[in-house]
Amino acid sequence: MMNLKQLAKALNLSISTVSKALRDSHEISVATKKAVVDKAKELNYQVNPFASSLRNHKSKTIAVVIPDVANNFFALAINGIESIAQEKGYHVLIYLTHENLQKEISITKLLQNGRVDGVMMSLASNTTDSNHLLELTEKEIPLVLFDRVAENLNLPKVTTDDYDSGFTGTEHLIENGCKRIAFLSIFHNLSIINKRMNGYKDALEKNGMPFDNSMIIQCNNDNEYNHSLIRTSLAHKKRPDGLFASIEKLAISSYAICNEMQLKIPDDVKIISFSNLPMASLLNPSMTIITQPAFEIGREAASILFNLIAKKDMKFIREKTVLKSILIPRNSTMKKKEIK
Amino acid sequence: MMNLKQLAKALNLSISTVSKALRDSHEISVATKKAVVDKAKELNYQVNPFASSLRNHKSKTIAVVIPDVANNFFALAINGIESIAQEKGYHVLIYLTHENLQKEISITKLLQNGRVDGVMMSLASNTTDSNHLLELTEKEIPLVLFDRVAENLNLPKVTTDDYDSGFTGTEHLIENGCKRIAFLSIFHNLSIINKRMNGYKDALEKNGMPFDNSMIIQCNNDNEYNHSLIRTSLAHKKRPDGLFASIEKLAISSYAICNEMQLKIPDDVKIISFSNLPMASLLNPSMTIITQPAFEIGREAASILFNLIAKKDMKFIREKTVLKSILIPRNSTMKKKEIK
Repeated sequence: MMNLKQLAKALNLSISTVSKALRDSHEISVATKKAVVDKAKELNYQVNPFASSLRNHKSKTIAVVIPDVANNFFALAINGIESIAQEKGYHVLIYLTHENLQKEISITKLLQNGRVDGVMMSLASNTTDSNHLLELTEKEIPLVLFDRVAENLNLPKVTTDDYDSGFTGTEHLIENGCKRIAFLSIFHNLSIINKRMNGYKDALEKNGMPFDNSMIIQCNNDNEYNHSLIRTSLAHKKRPDGLFASIEKLAISSYAICNEMQLKIPDDVKIISFSNLPMASLLNPSMTIITQPAFEIGREAASILFNLIAKKDMKFIREKTVLKSILIPRNSTMKKKEIK
Repeated sequence: MMNLKQLAKALNLSISTVSKALRDSHEISVATKKAVVDKAKELNYQVNPFASSLRNHKSKTIAVVIPDVANNFFALAINGIESIAQEKGYHVLIYLTHENLQKEISITKLLQNGRVDGVMMSLASNTTDSNHLLELTEKEIPLVLFDRVAENLNLPKVTTDDYDSGFTGTEHLIENGCKRIAFLSIFHNLSIINKRMNGYKDALEKNGMPFDNSMIIQCNNDNEYNHSLIRTSLAHKKRPDGLFASIEKLAISSYAICNEMQLKIPDDVKIISFSNLPMASLLNPSMTIITQPAFEIGREAASILFNLIAKKDMKFIREKTVLKSILIPRNSTMKKKEIK
């Protein structure tokens, strides 16, 4: 049997466009609608009746699919999501992918059977293929992506200003005297990490500092590997005098490594990190962070999802929502004389 | 229609005993079985056929119901649970109660409809009534409690040695010179907090230190309230020289308050806390913690649940499993000369 994806491919249109055309959406031109309906007849495409019935069966439950729960960003985002779900009388189910694409796919398949009315997802770090996401939308289960999104998909997305934050964070280190800034990267498939890194590169360029590929420290999910990688970089003769951690746990490792190596933060090495850690201010020294509005991201993404569930007019639903992060300067990046 | 609970009450037996008797379990004596069957006939009790059919419908999914996700203990416990679920090819759903009994009840009702094969639960802080838990077991949906358990219920429970840890932590402060130790309590309904506090009281008594009720600082879910309560205690002329935080977030508040009040940790005030915080060692000063084996608790509870799901012989299933916590001494409780 022909499915929506194959029909869309035959038409050279996006799945979303074809789906809207079949639902007679006002967003789609009459010409396109006619082309879609003709092609559907020609190829004997039939609307999946199961999918429609699912759509009408309200489970009063939404699913949140995230990579990890031992992470303040996601914990806060969930609280934001729950604050909206509570108002709507919905239950929230949480599924963890543990940064594993296979698990993400298998959870997505499970969610196709109508147990939830909508899905919010933050992608696993190795998600390069998005067929499983399309399968959900094909079954007309509303899907909103947040934080870690697939840029190329025609789906509502809620993110933060990752490029700008990467830029601002790097300039903050430069203003405080750093000459050799390393970027602690992770999950190179993730658009958010790449945007942060692009901000870093452009800030270096704007300030006339040459980009040095050896200053990109490419970490992964293995804490011991990351530890030895950062340690090696800091043991180098021309070691970095500034570290920009793309995620919190790399900053925490860096603190521990500086302690081990008796490098003083911020005199020897300045550290800034993306983080939602409430106790960043209590670390020794207090840590300069770029903090994402995690709770608001969760609220915003949930609001969009409930609009989709209510089949609100799509023109009132923004495809892209970008919220602002905040840089909080503390002692880990201060010039010596400024430390309180 | 008479239900299992009413039948149990009429017999003056536990629901679990009656349920086992009706299932002809080898654990129940012939005399008891006869009494149960006779009474069931007399009262026209009928086995709920829906419950049995649910029991046979394998969803390959288990639910974990917890109060909070922004908490390292639960994050680690979930990882332990998932490590077992993965082996068994099961999905894990996470539900949050946000410390709200009403929410816990409503989630429990949702779980009675057969969407999961078993449930693991850590109770909300205001859970005093356990009828909703009995309803689950009445529907023959296996239930395992962990960490925050209802001691009086005849259900498998996995906990840590909370009394012993409360005792050891208090003696640790006494050995390091504390004369006035305050206990930062929270959620007085919770058995784990009460056990920790009883350990604290007994350690004081054993060391000839009088128990002073004003040294029990009863916190709640309101961070600002807790902050002012701890601050008031530390501003008192006869302020405590040691703080024993029953949960991590109260210790973090105490650090912030000492900073504000320019009280030096550990010279002016020593602090110890129950905590699973990976960065406790990076705080200023590094924090002495009692750390629960959270991952192992999750694994153990999940193993028991899968045995119940597989209808393993109950005699191989321990009702009570108690794992050991570990005290990790650091600078926040050290005598002056010992600080590294």
